[in-house]
Amino acid sequence: MGKSMISEVASRYREIQDRACEMLEKADSIAKFSRNSWEKEIGSGMTRVLENGAKIEKAAINFSHVSGEYTSEMAKMAGRSSGRFAATGVSSIIHPVSPLVPIIHMNIRYFELNDGTSWFGGGIDLTPHYVDKAEASWFHKKLKGTCDLYDLNFYSEFKKQADDYFFLPHRNETRGVGGVFFDQIEPSGMEDFEKLFDFTSALGKLYPEIYSEILGKKSNLDYSEKEKSWQYVRRGRYVEFNLLYDRGTKFGLASGGNTESILLSMPPQANWAYQYLPEEGSLENETLDLLKKDIDWINL
Amino acid sequence: MGKSMISEVASRYREIQDRACEMLEKADSIAKFSRNSWEKEIGSGMTRVLENGAKIEKAAINFSHVSGEYTSEMAKMAGRSSGRFAATGVSSIIHPVSPLVPIIHMNIRYFELNDGTSWFGGGIDLTPHYVDKAEASWFHKKLKGTCDLYDLNFYSEFKKQADDYFFLPHRNETRGVGGVFFDQIEPSGMEDFEKLFDFTSALGKLYPEIYSEILGKKSNLDYSEKEKSWQYVRRGRYVEFNLLYDRGTKFGLASGGNTESILLSMPPQANWAYQYLPEEGSLENETLDLLKKDIDWINL
Repeated sequence: MGKSMISEVASRYREIQDRACEMLEKADSIAKFSRNSWEKEIGSGMTRVLENGAKIEKAAINFSHVSGEYTSEMAKMAGRSSGRFAATGVSSIIHPVSPLVPIIHMNIRYFELNDGTSWFGGGIDLTPHYVDKAEASWFHKKLKGTCDLYDLNFYSEFKKQADDYFFLPHRNETRGVGGVFFDQIEPSGMEDFEKLFDFTSALGKLYPEIYSEILGKKSNLDYSEKEKSWQYVRRGRYVEFNLLYDRGTKFGLASGGNTESILLSMPPQANWAYQYLPEEGSLENETLDLLKKDIDWINL
Repeated sequence: MGKSMISEVASRYREIQDRACEMLEKADSIAKFSRNSWEKEIGSGMTRVLENGAKIEKAAINFSHVSGEYTSEMAKMAGRSSGRFAATGVSSIIHPVSPLVPIIHMNIRYFELNDGTSWFGGGIDLTPHYVDKAEASWFHKKLKGTCDLYDLNFYSEFKKQADDYFFLPHRNETRGVGGVFFDQIEPSGMEDFEKLFDFTSALGKLYPEIYSEILGKKSNLDYSEKEKSWQYVRRGRYVEFNLLYDRGTKFGLASGGNTESILLSMPPQANWAYQYLPEEGSLENETLDLLKKDIDWINL
């Protein structure tokens, strides 16, 4: 690549963060995102949090722009040799009030190393407390629609990567119905860089659109105490994934990032019950049966 | 060592588990421990759980006796070359109902490798939601009393190891007021083996005695909603430690152990709040000030 593009990327990603906050505030109708800008030795960021909304229990949208020396641990985690790096990204998780509304997660990020290499990463994935096949299918079609504008291979490749990544081996469960995920795509030149930059930007824009639509459709449906309890148990799984496997969390904590911002992925409340086994034929049990890799959600 | 001692150790550890359950049932006065024996390819175990007691919200006491091939990942975690291993241990965590009563954790374990080496590990540590200096001092004196019966260096060495191990770098906090912890002590011969076997057994016996006394003293004290909320936030830290750093949890999950038994360390409910900062001069703030390494609790 030669020329550093980090400032351009950081600037557009920052706008994507603001746009997502605006759209989600409108969708929630009551609560507002707080703004907390932070500066540390490693760089700076803007943490935006919405808590105790009408429809959203907790939403976090982080932007950061950092640079520094790779530690050997970070280098190992990223599969790279040591050196200087610069990185910028937006990451977000939303925990809804209603157990009938899914948890959603989005991340877009850009890395540059001092050896001239650079790459994009990111994705969007959905974690329903109760899997709704029609919703999962609609969600995957939305993702495919955006992917197809940039590369006809993106959806199938990144859908598979999401299945593999958002997986809890100790539970033998996927985290949810997946989505798209890509770890490191290196642009082959300036044109390819623009394509990938636009693609990650498009994902960042699609994210609040998708969630606003789901919130509008499902937030006002009645739910029971039992469904709320199940939501807390499923949030426990979310905590397990994020602390045991999530590379962003591990990388962030290991690199001396802002702990409160990184752990905004934690739900407001999570519960654990010993051997909580849903009844045969229940909706909870049906959900467990659908937490599998390689489901073709689009043609279900 | 030559001769395998795993059966003798497993048999006594199993009795220690039963004794702890009996004493804790008496202390709780209402709830009983369930029994769930499990068998997997790797070995067998007995999981005992008490939920929704009068004083204890959730207590788990696991016994296991397993053997198998070291995977390369396990070997790396244990700092050993690969080969066959056998292991037995008791581990326990108790989450009380009252925020004024601390969380407690105990683990004793014995490992043998097919190259003839063997070692003991274990410890007891206390995690108050509100640090009570007198209680912490009393707790450390109890531990020192037991340590001193076996080796006058044990307490100071293992107290330091507990401080170092039960630490959350991303929070710059110790998990609680520490206790004793030792990872791998290899017996130098048969006499030393007996000493270490007796020492770990003594810790396993001390554990329910200490906790019964604390429960008796503090369970009936009144507490507020605010104190209960703080308990949930502190439990969040407990979850963070166990999933991010606890070697037993990581080793157990990586070795294909029983997930439900391993994750019994999770609290029934944990909460996360963004930048929850206690007021200056509050008891919550005083507790944060005391979550530090190298406090001489005995001579405080």
